[in-house]
Amino acid sequence: MTYCVAMRLETGLVFLSDSRTNAGVDHINTFRKMRIWQRQGERVIVMLTAGNLSVSQSVVNILNERLTIPDAPNLFNAPNMFEVARHVGEVVREVHRRDAEAMNEFGVEFNASLIVGGQIFGEAPRLFNIYSAGNFIETTEDTPYIQIGESKYGKPIIDRIVRYGSSLSDAAKCALVSMDSTIRSNLSVGLPLDLCVIERDALAIKSHISINQDNAYYAQVRSQWGERLREAFAELPSPDWI
Amino acid sequence: MTYCVAMRLETGLVFLSDSRTNAGVDHINTFRKMRIWQRQGERVIVMLTAGNLSVSQSVVNILNERLTIPDAPNLFNAPNMFEVARHVGEVVREVHRRDAEAMNEFGVEFNASLIVGGQIFGEAPRLFNIYSAGNFIETTEDTPYIQIGESKYGKPIIDRIVRYGSSLSDAAKCALVSMDSTIRSNLSVGLPLDLCVIERDALAIKSHISINQDNAYYAQVRSQWGERLREAFAELPSPDWI
Repeated sequence: MTYCVAMRLETGLVFLSDSRTNAGVDHINTFRKMRIWQRQGERVIVMLTAGNLSVSQSVVNILNERLTIPDAPNLFNAPNMFEVARHVGEVVREVHRRDAEAMNEFGVEFNASLIVGGQIFGEAPRLFNIYSAGNFIETTEDTPYIQIGESKYGKPIIDRIVRYGSSLSDAAKCALVSMDSTIRSNLSVGLPLDLCVIERDALAIKSHISINQDNAYYAQVRSQWGERLREAFAELPSPDWI
Repeated sequence: MTYCVAMRLETGLVFLSDSRTNAGVDHINTFRKMRIWQRQGERVIVMLTAGNLSVSQSVVNILNERLTIPDAPNLFNAPNMFEVARHVGEVVREVHRRDAEAMNEFGVEFNASLIVGGQIFGEAPRLFNIYSAGNFIETTEDTPYIQIGESKYGKPIIDRIVRYGSSLSDAAKCALVSMDSTIRSNLSVGLPLDLCVIERDALAIKSHISINQDNAYYAQVRSQWGERLREAFAELPSPDWI
């Protein structure tokens, strides 16, 4: 399984992914799920992947191949983020045409769920969720975030905290708290994490860090959040009818 | 959808259920999912139901029918809670034999998930999760709770708070916080709620209340929990690298 979340805020974009893959609980590996393409000052694109690993790796490989073919549509010549999302959707369909039938014969579902976001010079940052069928939706100010993979454990805290007007720092913090809740409840989501932050109009990555068990900030967030939750819970009034 | 949770603690049992059913988002109704059978001083049994409503209603009706047939195994003559769980499992299988094939023909999955718990004179309180196949598992001191239905949103807070040694009052409070997180994230879980508390060795219901929007305690828990979470979040250190 996987848990990835991304947020499009007034001031930029935040992306967070775990790195655990599993084909059964006895076949667990670490694969990064975040890919970055950037030309500083012109465009920056981040992709997070969930679903069947062979599908998402094929998508990434084809996207990179296309970068080397002159005049073909690719991530570096797409005129805007909408065209980037269409291009990625087309590549997902290409993989589907090639692999889905054979996968189905072996009882394996063709399953891909992608988050693609970024900014291209001339427009605001944008964030898309691309489905297995290659179609996609975009975040709005009302719903500024997208989750893929094992999303439910970590959704309530995002719903309570993150708004379009939230700061990048608060959004990154909330993404980490949401990830912590997911990791505690689901063995198939695990460290290390990839966290990437893009400031609006910078057209470059602001920070991209890998977080493992030794990361002091993440450790502090984990332990302090657990403590504070228990304190907050203890301060709630007790039912007087029990 | 449905969300139900029950906990078996050192000092007794807590049961909480919502009451929303849906067959598509345009077909939403209110059905209670908690059933209680008791003979004060001798036994008290509570059942919570999730899955296909026709299945769970059939199970309840057959369980009640059996109470009127002399000498047949039933909820009032089962010698212990293990036999209660077996009896309920048998009834689930009976409904399966009768309805599953016809349901499958119409593309409807036979889907039942039940929580059955209580205490019978002579043994400690016990709590079971009964599956569609009629088999079941029992809680232990390590894992003192069972959730059925839409369980993921409300799981992290229970994992952080509830232990076998928790008080009945804390467990009921935590069940309500867990329900609140679920209701906020999933439209198909909704009020009114049924909350039932059984004290160990009382062999009777201690309290059984219905909670709707006007319930002052639930309203206070909802608003105060939301506030405290936001405060706790604000107090977490901000990442200094963003």
